[in-house]
Amino acid sequence: MRYNPVTPQIVEQLMSIVGEANVVLEPEKMEVYGRDETSEAMWQHMPEVVVKPENARQISEIIKLANREIIPVTPRGAGTGLAAGAVPMLGGILLSLERMNKILEVDRENLFMVTEPGVTTGEVQRTARAEGFLYAGDPCSAESSFIGGNVATNAGGNKAVKYGVTGRHIYGLEVVLPNGEIVTLGGKCVKDVTGYDLVHLIVGSEGTLGVVTKVYLKLMPLLPFVADLLVPFDSVEKAIKIVPTIMTHGGIIPTCLEFMDSMSIKAAELYLNQKLPYSDAAAYVIVEIDGNTERQVEEDYETIGKLCLENGGLEVFVADNPSAQDRIWKARKCYAEALRMISPVYCMEDIVVPVSQIPRALEAINGIAEKHRVKIPCVAHAGDGNIHATLLREDRDEHTWHEVKDRVLDEIYREVYALGGALSGEHGIGAKRKGAMARFLHPAQIDMIKSIKKALDPNLILNPDKLVDVL
Amino acid sequence: MRYNPVTPQIVEQLMSIVGEANVVLEPEKMEVYGRDETSEAMWQHMPEVVVKPENARQISEIIKLANREIIPVTPRGAGTGLAAGAVPMLGGILLSLERMNKILEVDRENLFMVTEPGVTTGEVQRTARAEGFLYAGDPCSAESSFIGGNVATNAGGNKAVKYGVTGRHIYGLEVVLPNGEIVTLGGKCVKDVTGYDLVHLIVGSEGTLGVVTKVYLKLMPLLPFVADLLVPFDSVEKAIKIVPTIMTHGGIIPTCLEFMDSMSIKAAELYLNQKLPYSDAAAYVIVEIDGNTERQVEEDYETIGKLCLENGGLEVFVADNPSAQDRIWKARKCYAEALRMISPVYCMEDIVVPVSQIPRALEAINGIAEKHRVKIPCVAHAGDGNIHATLLREDRDEHTWHEVKDRVLDEIYREVYALGGALSGEHGIGAKRKGAMARFLHPAQIDMIKSIKKALDPNLILNPDKLVDVL
Repeated sequence: MRYNPVTPQIVEQLMSIVGEANVVLEPEKMEVYGRDETSEAMWQHMPEVVVKPENARQISEIIKLANREIIPVTPRGAGTGLAAGAVPMLGGILLSLERMNKILEVDRENLFMVTEPGVTTGEVQRTARAEGFLYAGDPCSAESSFIGGNVATNAGGNKAVKYGVTGRHIYGLEVVLPNGEIVTLGGKCVKDVTGYDLVHLIVGSEGTLGVVTKVYLKLMPLLPFVADLLVPFDSVEKAIKIVPTIMTHGGIIPTCLEFMDSMSIKAAELYLNQKLPYSDAAAYVIVEIDGNTERQVEEDYETIGKLCLENGGLEVFVADNPSAQDRIWKARKCYAEALRMISPVYCMEDIVVPVSQIPRALEAINGIAEKHRVKIPCVAHAGDGNIHATLLREDRDEHTWHEVKDRVLDEIYREVYALGGALSGEHGIGAKRKGAMARFLHPAQIDMIKSIKKALDPNLILNPDKLVDVL
Repeated sequence: MRYNPVTPQIVEQLMSIVGEANVVLEPEKMEVYGRDETSEAMWQHMPEVVVKPENARQISEIIKLANREIIPVTPRGAGTGLAAGAVPMLGGILLSLERMNKILEVDRENLFMVTEPGVTTGEVQRTARAEGFLYAGDPCSAESSFIGGNVATNAGGNKAVKYGVTGRHIYGLEVVLPNGEIVTLGGKCVKDVTGYDLVHLIVGSEGTLGVVTKVYLKLMPLLPFVADLLVPFDSVEKAIKIVPTIMTHGGIIPTCLEFMDSMSIKAAELYLNQKLPYSDAAAYVIVEIDGNTERQVEEDYETIGKLCLENGGLEVFVADNPSAQDRIWKARKCYAEALRMISPVYCMEDIVVPVSQIPRALEAINGIAEKHRVKIPCVAHAGDGNIHATLLREDRDEHTWHEVKDRVLDEIYREVYALGGALSGEHGIGAKRKGAMARFLHPAQIDMIKSIKKALDPNLILNPDKLVDVL
């Protein structure tokens, strides 16, 4: 596809759509829109213009214009992505959803919240909680990420073990399609088989099939009692083997089931500047339990605590109040920032394997790390088999770094696919993993993705250069 | 699309693919493949040939042949559908999955079952239960329906209130695509955002985008304690208003939350030839609770029972043992058979609305029924807003029946869409609701469906004449 540049005439048309104040052209103001949380320079690229529409109608006009002129449009939420999915790799128009930041409705009768895409996940969570409901989507970036970005990547996060990923809570979307049409897919019905499941085709499509302008989020009754367990282990093997043990033991499904390895614990301690308990342990396992009664939660965490102690847990720290829970989760959630202190440039991976294969996957990663002498601290949404293995560049020069990174990633991905796993559990493909996806998915599956993309976006206007190379 | 007839040469090729014994040509043996549980003659059509492959490779060869020769292929499970989705409306090849009836694996570590498509849902449920797990898909037709058909329609059923519809339990599919390629989408990872969510594009696509040859079903820990409540009410209004009350009360999510109106109760009583309690009540509400401890289940059903009594319930019958539970569920599950005794021909609808709109939807249906003097007994998966309203033909002549039916359906659908609802919650579109879908969905949504169908099945070989008219 040959795209055209954004000319002054086009900028004028954009201004007439969104207003002059909502068009950004100054390089220093555009710079932040040219990157996401992926730390490497190769995943940064400046847009030609940034526009900030305030409603679906404006987006529709922008997309129709882009179709007429053959200009790339990259939709963008908060820019907290980790796969360069919202980076305008081909320039063109950067469509920032930041002004569409209103919660439109909390429907107490049907347990739905309807929001615009630019609301932060944290605000969605707090608004639900204030009404006595749970919005169960909970990526670690919740305080800064937008709900629209969560939809675009089908974000996972901490509570997916029990409640499922973002897509599970989405029953309807208003979408501006690649041809500029505005359509509402689904809504507040909890079952609907009227035609193909287009809602979940859009969820996780990383802005390549449409721009989400309204989200129908399912809320759940808030279970009022919560406890967190922090369990240090003296070996990674024991720590990780507890995961399938917990998941298949009796009827208790934890809300969260997280893993941190020794390097991650140490990094968190350094970053938080605060002594963590048993911080010389080989690994932490964090388990969260929620329930409708205090007694039930106590029974459940006692069962799980006992299970941990019987299987090599060194100690079980119970946090049954918000401030103690906060301390535990801070250590887990500061992972990215903590690693940045050790190595400003790194490559965070997001592989996923069947839960029973986590021990083998971690063993393989450790083996590869040793072989290539790269530090790869790991944390995991272990209950989901989702491992964030992060290669640290440290003081390697650019060339050596890319060479070793490519080799290490290739070896990790091979292992992952041999174990029945996949490239990405929650961060997505974006620009960063496009090449790997092309190599690891079945060609027929790649062809399906290309065919759908071409069918719905024949001019390849929307977020081009992501996921697959269509042409 | 102009399709070609199945010639003797093609029959020979089919025989060489699946073996002579697995090709059916005799009209009396093919007759059963020419209809489903839709009772009207207009939704019946004979195939030209029935083939019974035993693996994906054979299906791939059949589909490649059909592409070369431009012959329709209609995949079919147990034929228990209610929308003529598996009826070969254009003749051609009927692809019966009945011989692919093996459970391939129960993975106790990852809580997955892998099956072929021709296993009955009941066998899936029993096999899971025997291992201490729950397979939570539970359509009323479970004893006869195939799991492959459940995938094709994204079947709902009784436990969807708490556990979600079939698609929620599907994490992987092996599919023969419309071009004959065999591909595995997803698998045993519980999170996976590597490319578009093709698994859930196939789920609910009613055999128009691929033939499912292997299903990866998620199992859950079996909650050992179950209780059912049968609550008669003296008015439909009170009965139905209890539904949103229960759904938004505290943290108790019932496993099932069903509704039967007076006509349905009377029909069940007649069909079962057995006195039901309070069978002159205006409506029944059935609530199922499950839990990990007996005490928890007791507490929950007492809370809900009290809530019912405070809101107009005449009595609360508690069934806490399998035989008492069986009696309750027989009355609910015999709905279709019981109506058939009153009127052998009927039109069963499957509308869905937001839960809070059920009272208005039922009121509207009753008004329309009175206006047109048609009996429309209703049962509902009320916790999901999914209402089976069934128009009885009784002794009307063919012409009058179609006239009144068309008018009644049009009025019902209009009301449903005005309430934020949709045409089908779980039965699907098939041939039966294709016309209605074309009228009620947004044209842009219909265009998306057509574009995807054309992109993945350019010769329109797979289950043509269903869902949408592509050309």
